[in-house]
Amino acid sequence: MRITLLLTSLFAGLSLNVQASSLFEKPEDAIEYRKAVFQLIRYQTGDMGDMLKGKIPFDAERFKQRANNAARLSAMPWEAFPAGSDKGDTDALPAIWTDRATFDKKAQDFADYAQKLAVAAESGDKKIIGAAFKNWAKGCKDCHKSFQD
Amino acid sequence: MRITLLLTSLFAGLSLNVQASSLFEKPEDAIEYRKAVFQLIRYQTGDMGDMLKGKIPFDAERFKQRANNAARLSAMPWEAFPAGSDKGDTDALPAIWTDRATFDKKAQDFADYAQKLAVAAESGDKKIIGAAFKNWAKGCKDCHKSFQD
Repeated sequence: MRITLLLTSLFAGLSLNVQASSLFEKPEDAIEYRKAVFQLIRYQTGDMGDMLKGKIPFDAERFKQRANNAARLSAMPWEAFPAGSDKGDTDALPAIWTDRATFDKKAQDFADYAQKLAVAAESGDKKIIGAAFKNWAKGCKDCHKSFQD
Repeated sequence: MRITLLLTSLFAGLSLNVQASSLFEKPEDAIEYRKAVFQLIRYQTGDMGDMLKGKIPFDAERFKQRANNAARLSAMPWEAFPAGSDKGDTDALPAIWTDRATFDKKAQDFADYAQKLAVAAESGDKKIIGAAFKNWAKGCKDCHKSFQD
């Protein structure tokens, strides 16, 4: 019951952030924004990974916070790839703009896996959490492989 | 009913991110992390402000996304003020570390106002949303006044 409620609310709040009118005045702003989001995601991933590997003690409450941060952050960077932001201080590959449909699909998968991880974190069960974390990490790699230099 | 459910889930997920063991190896990492969070918050604030002022069309769905981003992000920077991160590329004032209780209280207020804004955004009512936005903006300023150079 609790999981269902959480799922409902997560999905209500978490459609991908892709907006019709841009948040950014200049391509550099978009690059800076998406880098900030991915950097924050990396911290969440690192900390969750450390807990699952036993490098630091597993703390169910801390893990939940990380997974919730990750779920929200994972919906955020996608509006920050406007046309023209392929040049500059970025490792984003041109394929993002030439094969946008594939990119968008992988972005959606990644965000979905992050939401599932947040739901799994509610269980407090390391086995369920570990499986969800693995899927999400696969989603990271899968997108980087095709779209990041 | 919907609002109650959302409230419940928001508050479940959104205690402040203040962790016992640090996420950061070096003070510079913490500074970079909190700056990234505040930078992302500023984008959400700017966009919501533009919608409320009529600079760009009010889009209830977009506003909801911004408010949900803001609510999550507003719980995130607080773990990134460890001892020793008062020096370096930062405008954080020493009072954060000498008067931590006041800082923590203002941080909690700020995060609470952001959560209330996310709930208000669900209403789609610009009057309710505007009032919640004003409170949240006051929370920003109130903390900056005491703790940011």
